[in-house]
Amino acid sequence: MSEFKSRRAALAAELDERKLDALLVTALPNVRYLTGFSGSNAVTLLLREGALLFTDPRYALHAKQASGRVKVCRGPLLKDVVETVRRRRIRRLGFEKSRLGFEAYDFLRAGLPARTALEPVAALVERQRMIKSDEETALVRESVRLNSLAFRQSLRHVREGMRETDLAAEIEYRMRRLGAERAAFETIVAFGRHSALPHAQPGARVLGRADWVLIDMGAQYQGYASDMTRVLFHGRVSRRARQLYRAVLEAQLAAIAAVRPGVAAGRVDREARRVLKAAGLDRFFTHSTGHGLGLEIHEAPRLGRNEKLRLEAGMTLTVEPGIYLEELGGIRIEDTVLVTGRGCEVLTPTPKEILEI
Amino acid sequence: MSEFKSRRAALAAELDERKLDALLVTALPNVRYLTGFSGSNAVTLLLREGALLFTDPRYALHAKQASGRVKVCRGPLLKDVVETVRRRRIRRLGFEKSRLGFEAYDFLRAGLPARTALEPVAALVERQRMIKSDEETALVRESVRLNSLAFRQSLRHVREGMRETDLAAEIEYRMRRLGAERAAFETIVAFGRHSALPHAQPGARVLGRADWVLIDMGAQYQGYASDMTRVLFHGRVSRRARQLYRAVLEAQLAAIAAVRPGVAAGRVDREARRVLKAAGLDRFFTHSTGHGLGLEIHEAPRLGRNEKLRLEAGMTLTVEPGIYLEELGGIRIEDTVLVTGRGCEVLTPTPKEILEI
Repeated sequence: MSEFKSRRAALAAELDERKLDALLVTALPNVRYLTGFSGSNAVTLLLREGALLFTDPRYALHAKQASGRVKVCRGPLLKDVVETVRRRRIRRLGFEKSRLGFEAYDFLRAGLPARTALEPVAALVERQRMIKSDEETALVRESVRLNSLAFRQSLRHVREGMRETDLAAEIEYRMRRLGAERAAFETIVAFGRHSALPHAQPGARVLGRADWVLIDMGAQYQGYASDMTRVLFHGRVSRRARQLYRAVLEAQLAAIAAVRPGVAAGRVDREARRVLKAAGLDRFFTHSTGHGLGLEIHEAPRLGRNEKLRLEAGMTLTVEPGIYLEELGGIRIEDTVLVTGRGCEVLTPTPKEILEI
Repeated sequence: MSEFKSRRAALAAELDERKLDALLVTALPNVRYLTGFSGSNAVTLLLREGALLFTDPRYALHAKQASGRVKVCRGPLLKDVVETVRRRRIRRLGFEKSRLGFEAYDFLRAGLPARTALEPVAALVERQRMIKSDEETALVRESVRLNSLAFRQSLRHVREGMRETDLAAEIEYRMRRLGAERAAFETIVAFGRHSALPHAQPGARVLGRADWVLIDMGAQYQGYASDMTRVLFHGRVSRRARQLYRAVLEAQLAAIAAVRPGVAAGRVDREARRVLKAAGLDRFFTHSTGHGLGLEIHEAPRLGRNEKLRLEAGMTLTVEPGIYLEELGGIRIEDTVLVTGRGCEVLTPTPKEILEI
């Protein structure tokens, strides 16, 4: 049985349990997970006995390589979905409630017979996607590997007077030359105090003599994301910066040490927070400690303070505490880790010692 | 009055006409259009007397530069929206029906008092966005200019044996070095027969001796998109390829000649189709002739066969007929044009003569 088929079989059991005849999958990463199809316009009707992929003529050839049956639609995909649901006399149709637009829902409701119940479903495919198979883990590993390699290659190009956008362009260029389809998200490069914005957009800021450089980058490789943040010091590191850096690194290592099957996601977050609190820095840690990643850059679980969800082997996560001081800048250290049978493996090979360049 | 204010004032009149007290704007390009805010998490409540921008703490600093009042939300943005709508006793609240998710709609409906009517609204902001101001046109021009420059710079790097992904990486690198925030869409580079897929994803295919090279690329500059397609011939062009190329170019020029205020969008499409029909090639022209572009790469109007909408001065459009022969490859020629008072101006400066490299 192909990997896609076995994923669908596992979900078919879930449909059965919920007494759903079918699930309309509208989130593209979920479509890809269930069929292998990676085009930009598709939905999948997941039936207990298989899957039907709907796409448009631009992707007709591409869809031939997908797993499962394919319907190439001349008009709106949902028109053909409605027709199929009617013809198959589907009574209970689930839909992805956080992944379907209001207008699309309205179209379905208006087009389907009254006997067809439309049932909102939360994160069914996403929950299964949290646990990566060996095939998926291998892709995340490769994504992480080439991301770190692109980082190393880009460091050679860091020089005073360059703009943030120049370094971001260099980084994404390197990723792609190394085999990534694209950056998994918009690469963050922030110089100096600009790094105090956790989601800084690279701009025309120029690298100064004693700036620090925050780089948050991830590759997408055969659909799978990696994610890493490092802070470099251009010129000598001040004592204060060194203290801050060490505190964040200590927090990150403590959080990583807490990652193992059975532990609540919130526990990992609280470990990082505990260390930063001891250093008097916890109020500058303004986001959560990490998140799952895979076919999307942000997936479940979230490593947030009160998350009850228990970690399981096969999850791929980021661990990324950070502190942001408006007058100085931000320091965040982030790796991609894999939850293993007894603990976790840090996939990211890039060193975390203080780096002066 | 700032440009953002005058855009909001024009829409306030529309609200008035539709007897809406407010419009909840959830499409990010619309938020940017109305406030200048370019972060990745925001909604705007457009009131008759102004606008309220809701975003999260990551963007608190960034939002200070936005036009209009700002609310930084600790939790989900829509929670604060509900509270504001309640407090202001808004009776009729419009929402963007193609830009709001089912779950978000459900959340609003559940949270708002029964006296507040939720009214689905179609493309209100989008309709205004079709007509670009001089400020916007200047940004599209700059986007087009640097896109064409990146194209020219990248040509130097085309060589036998390179992969499609290598050339795509080079192109996007050049765009960004020239000042683009990013590519406006995933750059298409397709060698040889692969170009027969209108939406080819660049892959590991290697450039062969007599391949042709289809490049479809666009930059994003200060939010605004450009879009251009060219086909290059690696080595000598066959007679057949030359014939096909000439037919597509003739179709493109005929379509451009039809662009002027007052003409139905469908007319431009039919002009391209007419020329290709005369050459016996119309059945290979499998998509529409073009689309609007601006803060999004695909905007209204669509230059499709039966589009009744009349063109107006200030629209920025692509004109891009193409033909796709499975055994040979695809040829598409695309420029970005501006509808002017009496006709149109082709903004794209890149030559369209047959190019052998």
